[in-house]
Amino acid sequence: MKILSVGSVAFDSIKTPFGEAKNLLGGSATYFSLAARFFATPAIVAVVGQDFTDEHRQIFTKNDIDVSGLVKLPGKTFAWGGEYGFDLNTRQTLFTHLNVFENFKPQLHEEHQNAPFVFLGNIQPNLQKLVLNQIKHPKLVGLDTMNLWIQNTPTELAEVLKLIDVLVINDSEARQLSQEHNLAKAAKKIRLMMRPQAVLVIKQGEHGLLMFYNNTIFNLPGYLLEDVFDPTGAGDSFAGGFMGYLAQAGEITEANLKRACVFGSVVASFCVEDFGTKRLETLTKQDIDQRFAQFKQLTYFELH
Amino acid sequence: MKILSVGSVAFDSIKTPFGEAKNLLGGSATYFSLAARFFATPAIVAVVGQDFTDEHRQIFTKNDIDVSGLVKLPGKTFAWGGEYGFDLNTRQTLFTHLNVFENFKPQLHEEHQNAPFVFLGNIQPNLQKLVLNQIKHPKLVGLDTMNLWIQNTPTELAEVLKLIDVLVINDSEARQLSQEHNLAKAAKKIRLMMRPQAVLVIKQGEHGLLMFYNNTIFNLPGYLLEDVFDPTGAGDSFAGGFMGYLAQAGEITEANLKRACVFGSVVASFCVEDFGTKRLETLTKQDIDQRFAQFKQLTYFELH
Repeated sequence: MKILSVGSVAFDSIKTPFGEAKNLLGGSATYFSLAARFFATPAIVAVVGQDFTDEHRQIFTKNDIDVSGLVKLPGKTFAWGGEYGFDLNTRQTLFTHLNVFENFKPQLHEEHQNAPFVFLGNIQPNLQKLVLNQIKHPKLVGLDTMNLWIQNTPTELAEVLKLIDVLVINDSEARQLSQEHNLAKAAKKIRLMMRPQAVLVIKQGEHGLLMFYNNTIFNLPGYLLEDVFDPTGAGDSFAGGFMGYLAQAGEITEANLKRACVFGSVVASFCVEDFGTKRLETLTKQDIDQRFAQFKQLTYFELH
Repeated sequence: MKILSVGSVAFDSIKTPFGEAKNLLGGSATYFSLAARFFATPAIVAVVGQDFTDEHRQIFTKNDIDVSGLVKLPGKTFAWGGEYGFDLNTRQTLFTHLNVFENFKPQLHEEHQNAPFVFLGNIQPNLQKLVLNQIKHPKLVGLDTMNLWIQNTPTELAEVLKLIDVLVINDSEARQLSQEHNLAKAAKKIRLMMRPQAVLVIKQGEHGLLMFYNNTIFNLPGYLLEDVFDPTGAGDSFAGGFMGYLAQAGEITEANLKRACVFGSVVASFCVEDFGTKRLETLTKQDIDQRFAQFKQLTYFELH
């Protein structure tokens, strides 16, 4: 099943307490597609600059990721630099060079317009809507956003929230969007901004996630890791695993949504074990299935 | 089954963003026994002052809590005052008047010396050992501690850690005790300080808990609440539900330990819904069983 990911392809420079790395291939569409590929056939819609080489492209193509929607423009690729605090829970942005990304106006070719599963990565809400209008038969549309859009373009964001099926945000974004500190209350308010049958996933970093769907709440703890090297891309890897599994499963049921949460968390837990996309590139479906089973062990208890 | 709780009975003055209350009956032994009573017969070993009235005593006796080990001495009862920050995750101690608690030297009468289940609340490690030496046939001994003892009496704490079966501490205490920020690593180090078959529970507040036993790790999220009024006593209520359920179940198995974690979390989740012990006093076993089942719903997913 084809799953379309619209977002950024970037070069990341990352500093963590364990080391640093420069110009790693990153961006939301990169992490999303590298995570989703274990379950479905990802296609990227993004823009890169002249510094994006064939070697970079091969990271996608050798993993059967469709890059026919990856446009190369004169100029440089979007570049981001960030530094993590000692406990990896705080992140400081060192620089953001939008470069070619600044004028990104995604135009989907016909095959992509027919993709049933679409993930609108963290870009300006009007651009997310622009993409959505090009999708002919959407089956499931997921969306990410960030503090910048919540603050600067609330009206545009509110509009696009009414059109999508799954919102995946982190706890601080949920609090900002709802103006509620308590996450149960925050979720209630946010769900009123969305269609009644829409799914809300609130990510809590190392503390796992909360998923809301109809009358169901699902609370999954974070997978306990001894070594976290680089949290970059964890959120987009989660979204890739989550949406990818749903694309594979086909039906949007409560059971599938819960498993999608677990698969998303599993892929994200691998992502943070090494710098950038390194671990995602060597990851196998067997690794994923093994950790999925461990997750079950970790959280399961009997009623009697 | 008798379950002995050695700790504090105190008068608490509490300020939260939602209001304040003065001279509420509190203390570790109070919360523990009010939580454990749903599963076993708690007995309190503690000291109070002349300001402890028959009305206070009745809160215990009407709930079938054995207060034959509650000693009344000249002077005032231990008094504590604290204020919580807006998100209830930070707490500032406003005052601590040890009063009669300062010279607390627990002496167990014969019936209490025969209690199979014992919880050593957060008191000086040497006093915890003094109690332990009086227990003739311990079946399961639980222990709590705090930053003060970890810092000031590490040798005494290390000694008592070798003698007990269950350590229940929160995440910041686990980090302090192990000198490790990562909780997986912290747990490994702490378990080396304990007997190989001992159980370690690391509480993470609203984010739930981690339990370590043999080769098992159990990760339970926090029960999602819309309204948290007063976190005071949540930790001791957890311990009461946890130890109480084990006393009722009789056998220390992996399945029982996991369920004990859930029952402890359920009782603690009720505790924080109102000031002091108010909610615990009106709580019923039916309320507990209902929320236990909801917890299952909240965390359960199918493998296939």
